[in-house]
Amino acid sequence: MPHIDLNADLGESNAGNPVADDAAMISLISSANVACGFHAGDPHDIFTTLKLAAERGLTVGAHPAYRDRAGFGRRFIDYDPAELADEILYQIGAVDALARAAGTRVSYVKPHGALYNTIVHNEAHAKATLDGIAAFGDLPVMLLPGGLAVDMAEKRGTRVICEAFADRGYNPDGTLVSRRAPGAVLHDADAVAQRVLDLATTGTVTAIDGTQLSLGVESVCVHGDSPGSVEMTAAIVEKLTDAGIQIRSSL
Amino acid sequence: MPHIDLNADLGESNAGNPVADDAAMISLISSANVACGFHAGDPHDIFTTLKLAAERGLTVGAHPAYRDRAGFGRRFIDYDPAELADEILYQIGAVDALARAAGTRVSYVKPHGALYNTIVHNEAHAKATLDGIAAFGDLPVMLLPGGLAVDMAEKRGTRVICEAFADRGYNPDGTLVSRRAPGAVLHDADAVAQRVLDLATTGTVTAIDGTQLSLGVESVCVHGDSPGSVEMTAAIVEKLTDAGIQIRSSL
Amino acid sequence: MPHIDLNADLGESNAGNPVADDAAMISLISSANVACGFHAGDPHDIFTTLKLAAERGLTVGAHPAYRDRAGFGRRFIDYDPAELADEILYQIGAVDALARAAGTRVSYVKPHGALYNTIVHNEAHAKATLDGIAAFGDLPVMLLPGGLAVDMAEKRGTRVICEAFADRGYNPDGTLVSRRAPGAVLHDADAVAQRVLDLATTGTVTAIDGTQLSLGVESVCVHGDSPGSVEMTAAIVEKLTDAGIQIRSSL
Amino acid sequence: MPHIDLNADLGESNAGNPVADDAAMISLISSANVACGFHAGDPHDIFTTLKLAAERGLTVGAHPAYRDRAGFGRRFIDYDPAELADEILYQIGAVDALARAAGTRVSYVKPHGALYNTIVHNEAHAKATLDGIAAFGDLPVMLLPGGLAVDMAEKRGTRVICEAFADRGYNPDGTLVSRRAPGAVLHDADAVAQRVLDLATTGTVTAIDGTQLSLGVESVCVHGDSPGSVEMTAAIVEKLTDAGIQIRSSL
Repeated sequence: MPHIDLNADLGESNAGNPVADDAAMISLISSANVACGFHAGDPHDIFTTLKLAAERGLTVGAHPAYRDRAGFGRRFIDYDPAELADEILYQIGAVDALARAAGTRVSYVKPHGALYNTIVHNEAHAKATLDGIAAFGDLPVMLLPGGLAVDMAEKRGTRVICEAFADRGYNPDGTLVSRRAPGAVLHDADAVAQRVLDLATTGTVTAIDGTQLSLGVESVCVHGDSPGSVEMTAAIVEKLTDAGIQIRSSL
Repeated sequence: MPHIDLNADLGESNAGNPVADDAAMISLISSANVACGFHAGDPHDIFTTLKLAAERGLTVGAHPAYRDRAGFGRRFIDYDPAELADEILYQIGAVDALARAAGTRVSYVKPHGALYNTIVHNEAHAKATLDGIAAFGDLPVMLLPGGLAVDMAEKRGTRVICEAFADRGYNPDGTLVSRRAPGAVLHDADAVAQRVLDLATTGTVTAIDGTQLSLGVESVCVHGDSPGSVEMTAAIVEKLTDAGIQIRSSL
Repeated sequence: MPHIDLNADLGESNAGNPVADDAAMISLISSANVACGFHAGDPHDIFTTLKLAAERGLTVGAHPAYRDRAGFGRRFIDYDPAELADEILYQIGAVDALARAAGTRVSYVKPHGALYNTIVHNEAHAKATLDGIAAFGDLPVMLLPGGLAVDMAEKRGTRVICEAFADRGYNPDGTLVSRRAPGAVLHDADAVAQRVLDLATTGTVTAIDGTQLSLGVESVCVHGDSPGSVEMTAAIVEKLTDAGIQIRSSL
Repeated sequence: MPHIDLNADLGESNAGNPVADDAAMISLISSANVACGFHAGDPHDIFTTLKLAAERGLTVGAHPAYRDRAGFGRRFIDYDPAELADEILYQIGAVDALARAAGTRVSYVKPHGALYNTIVHNEAHAKATLDGIAAFGDLPVMLLPGGLAVDMAEKRGTRVICEAFADRGYNPDGTLVSRRAPGAVLHDADAVAQRVLDLATTGTVTAIDGTQLSLGVESVCVHGDSPGSVEMTAAIVEKLTDAGIQIRSSL
């Protein structure tokens, strides 16, 4: 049966104030990238999200970040690589303990925000990230296709889960359209749903200039933290279900 | 062979500035209570301490705290119990991941500072602490003899490691002399060493009024963070070794 | 012309995520209690709120708290009083600098959350709070009527602005109905608006048992951080305006 | 009378653990760069340092930093400039409030660590830093000679206090020898004292290749946070005093 994974960033609360409707998102998606407390996430709220994810049978990933709650992990920090590796290990261990208590476990790692973007090109931080993950165990890493961290992971024998973004515009070279440029974010739920269906059936996405890109991704990231994001995700799920595509993790 | 455990609080750095000479302490003691990042401790420094502890064959404990780096975990915080339990679980998981990467693992839990003192009498926080530990696994908890948390742990079947304090004065009822009262802290290395020898051989300590107290402890806490603490610990070790007492954890 | 002050807690963002619609609230109220970064609030978001408040001619208060972003300042922390006083002074100074750059200044201080509640009965923290304020300057303090901090402030000659809560139930003795008891929070906008009108015209509020309480307050606190709070505040403003009551600070 | 300013970074405690002997340093130097809580410094400890500085008649500067206690402000963080400006303003305001309560005030600003180094070349952060300072008031800024922030400050009419480093090696172009290269740090107290005397009398320093550099500085930074730093500072003070050089701020 044809299938695709839908993942979203969850557990991102601050002092009990979440930025997404985790329960609604968990009822729709198949993989939860769970905040680890360094960019957002309080242990009790993380646990609550993990418990819901476990009950619905989602696959759980740790979503570690630079230590920057003030910046929501969205700012590059010029870490010493050895410190970065140990902070990633610390975060995975913390969330895995909560996950096991919730009846599940950390099955993959998706770096967050500025860390995610930095390891596309920064060799020291890419290596530190993979070192931190490897120190915890033999876990797959979820990344954007292309980029230095993907190459490095493949050379080390670390399984990579490549993902696309449901609502982001693509350049003809497969990179994302900058958030400062027109076409960076798609807002039409039908168009986004059709695009995820295309990714699930043909593995391709249409770039902003009309080019058909073959991305070959296993997972599609949907956002839970913008207005209308639950409705957009529901539209994606409906479109996939109508087409007979199963929504599940490949792990 | 007669034996006693010596434990100390380690890994308590802030931005790379440690409060103790961890390497020197690790060469002397048998159990390391390792900070988890909530009152002190940076992941990379925690890892370095854990690595040294693993190399010297020490038993490693997690040393979780209220989330209060500004107060070094020494202030009571009126936590919701469910939040406290999950924060303790988070901390143990984080340090256990670092410990495993360093070649060891968390073998017990010793609550830190205000948490340690609070659970002597606060039922909700005592239960939350034991719940947090149990959620991680079947680990012993290191506590002061007497008090509510000890009773509660024993009723639940959680193994308790009772400890004495090498350099703290005792009241005739077995409680510690308040830090605001005279006789709260012993500064003479010989007297402290003799007291630890007494604890190791007879299980007793002399209270400030001369009363002989039978404490029945398995471990003795030595401080690593005051001037002369390495020398005092070395004097204790020499006195124990001369008397043929082995310094080792009972775990 | 009869008048009443409406105040609300604003500037309470975390990593750019606000908990209230500050702009909407600022268009309705007369006094803004602005977060100082210890329970919530990022300097740039605080500045933006202050700028809006200055443009609309609101009176600005500093809203200092225990240092507890994880708990949104809602948990008692057993501070050393000298440390608490200096943390309050630090917070007022920080927000006053932002306020002056925004074209206004801090004109009063309203303690936040657990600090607000604690100084009703905790003498050391009440004194520390007033000491911290006095160290900054001769500023009024906004408090619940009754309680130790009010008495202490009056004895010291510190001006007290007593406030009522628009949507909280009152016990016959003038204290607030516990959030765990029925009747703690009023949800009907009309009833809340009528109550604020009563406070503005007669100075009284009806307790949950029907008793008429004479509160004698200068200000009424409205919430900006719950669903429907802007609408409820708009209803209050309309009711007051229709009755010819001016909404303005008495400072 | 010939004179030179000696400045040092103080108030850098964490949970009551200072990294320098502030009292000893304050008895020797003329200007105190006081931590503002973003890289280090607790309000009560900052106040204590400010009180000592006020009693000894030192000139006080604010020492703002990127918000990074975990990294002691030593790591570049890719801030949004508007956020950076407001965080600098927040920090200056906070410390100025403490300073006024201690009987002094903030008379200049010296950026800390990675911020200090970044604004030598990063235009957006240099502008944000100067904007943050200007928003507080017309304060001089203490900087390394050369570099973009100095030029920008001078163009804006902001007074610049140029400083040299007592114990750092200089390249022939006037930049500091990298900490990773030989000759980065001088450890000989006599050599360091002689160098400060040369700076005070001739305005020159000898680079690592023997070149005489004319630095033209008003202040010399001495470190308080390394072993032997108090002794080295005392040696500098003795050498200057013997030569009839007065140690005082030019502000």
